[in-house]
Amino acid sequence: MNSPARHDRPADAPLVHPVHDAAAKVLVVGSVALDSVETPFGRADDVLGGSGTYFASSASHFAPVQVVGVVGDDYPIEKLEPLRERGVDFAGLERASGTSFRWRGRYRHDLNSAETLETHLGVFSHFAPKIPEQFRNAPFVFLANIDPRLQLQVLDQVTAPKLVACDTMNFWIESRRPELIELLGRVDLITLNDGEVRQLTEKANLVHGAKWILDRGPKHVIIKKGEHGAFMFTKESVFFAPAYPLESVFDPTGAGDSFAGGFIGHLASTNDLSDLSMRRAVVVGSAMGSFAVEKFSNARLLEIGHDDIERRVQEFRQLVAFDAELRT
Amino acid sequence: MNSPARHDRPADAPLVHPVHDAAAKVLVVGSVALDSVETPFGRADDVLGGSGTYFASSASHFAPVQVVGVVGDDYPIEKLEPLRERGVDFAGLERASGTSFRWRGRYRHDLNSAETLETHLGVFSHFAPKIPEQFRNAPFVFLANIDPRLQLQVLDQVTAPKLVACDTMNFWIESRRPELIELLGRVDLITLNDGEVRQLTEKANLVHGAKWILDRGPKHVIIKKGEHGAFMFTKESVFFAPAYPLESVFDPTGAGDSFAGGFIGHLASTNDLSDLSMRRAVVVGSAMGSFAVEKFSNARLLEIGHDDIERRVQEFRQLVAFDAELRT
Repeated sequence: MNSPARHDRPADAPLVHPVHDAAAKVLVVGSVALDSVETPFGRADDVLGGSGTYFASSASHFAPVQVVGVVGDDYPIEKLEPLRERGVDFAGLERASGTSFRWRGRYRHDLNSAETLETHLGVFSHFAPKIPEQFRNAPFVFLANIDPRLQLQVLDQVTAPKLVACDTMNFWIESRRPELIELLGRVDLITLNDGEVRQLTEKANLVHGAKWILDRGPKHVIIKKGEHGAFMFTKESVFFAPAYPLESVFDPTGAGDSFAGGFIGHLASTNDLSDLSMRRAVVVGSAMGSFAVEKFSNARLLEIGHDDIERRVQEFRQLVAFDAELRT
Repeated sequence: MNSPARHDRPADAPLVHPVHDAAAKVLVVGSVALDSVETPFGRADDVLGGSGTYFASSASHFAPVQVVGVVGDDYPIEKLEPLRERGVDFAGLERASGTSFRWRGRYRHDLNSAETLETHLGVFSHFAPKIPEQFRNAPFVFLANIDPRLQLQVLDQVTAPKLVACDTMNFWIESRRPELIELLGRVDLITLNDGEVRQLTEKANLVHGAKWILDRGPKHVIIKKGEHGAFMFTKESVFFAPAYPLESVFDPTGAGDSFAGGFIGHLASTNDLSDLSMRRAVVVGSAMGSFAVEKFSNARLLEIGHDDIERRVQEFRQLVAFDAELRT
């Protein structure tokens, strides 16, 4: 029973720090794609998409980000300029001969799940991540949702990770189970949605599912439940952050990768992996996910500033506060 | 911008108070039934059920409870003895000639929704609530899920309510819409699940739905999302309490009424209707709902004590804490 100082900070002390010199570098390996999306509120064609893009757009608010991925020679590379200006390093973005990864999807009225209309992998189908020399010592590594075989290849190339997190999806759980189990033994944290936890672990109960995963390696399991919030399980504790109740969810694409970007960005900016810091990182991640869905593509993530993020984090505080009044 | 004292209490100060002399009386009008339930873990036949029973089992941990309802002459009235011993007053429980309200239901593997196999209303189909003289001045009134016409009749008989809360369901939203809208103008608070909010308000977005309801009378709207927690909306703020991530959900029947019992019981025990107290009441309600589902019928609600409830409330604190470390 240890009892560290409680209430060591005022409830409205800033939790979010903009990128500063002490922030550690964050490496992300994922897709850089072109999305075409239909929602009940409109449509967008060939806009910036992909897990690497969303992650970088979000994490770059907190830390310097290095991207490894591949695009075809048709990719409108100038569209990445705003991210470059935010300090995102694309030295690991290969430009291959062929067409870029394109995804076309549609959301119905309830916005809960995307219906994939078309997927063209293009050059992404032959992607073999090569981590540039100057990226290999990044302390924070995010393996976005790609083939677990490639995620393992990345881990063979990084030299000194302080925290490795990975994402995955139903397709890999089904088709690459042995590689995914191997990966679990080599990462510190995995993010999954609730359906993926049940598919991977064959446990209907999420607490049992989280334990199953924790027993196979990761010290942290984050279970994303979309509009129902996110759990973070460790062997010692459970943390929950709700999804902010937004009045206007415009386009859910990229919410999960924006969450991961805010989560890892916060850890990199503080260089603090204590339980308390990890909990705050979940809240920052939830805030970034809530911004991502307010506009198509990464548009909202690029227009917000430090004050917007801090304000939303304070709204999260208010949302769950029951121990003391907060300012209204 | 008012800024009341923050951190006015240590994070581990007790939040739950057992029944004491200053606790206000709570009147509930609802069903007292016999349930037969099948879950993946077993079955129970002709056990205590009904909204009034669950509510009273939960609220009686915090305040004196008065029950108004009806049972048939076949009802095993001795099964209510444990509730009587807990101070529940059944002077308003009419015993009518005929059969008692019986419900038979089944939960599948995911435990998310009940499948009703049989409903026999029996004497409940002619129920006309008569509030005994000595119950009419109860400061806290819960109108459980019954015909809105009857809920309105109850309001004509109570004399000095400090807080009136009501519940309802899809059947009444469809068949008694005008009466339900009238009721909204006469209650302080309504509890609904997310599907019912969408059905009643025809808004897909819960924030919009909550506003629609708040515009029609209630100062508080509680949206129950089952395993995904509960929102409390007012015109000024939103509060969210997660559902506790239980390892063993045994029988979800009665979770909503047990939530309401904990919620109103807490308010009656503190006699405090401030925003902070209402938020704490949602947490106490969530704790009671989480106990209710751990065993069949009201068995778990009857065996827990003050320490169990306080411990679970502390677990809720830990679950959402990200401002300061809590004791582990």
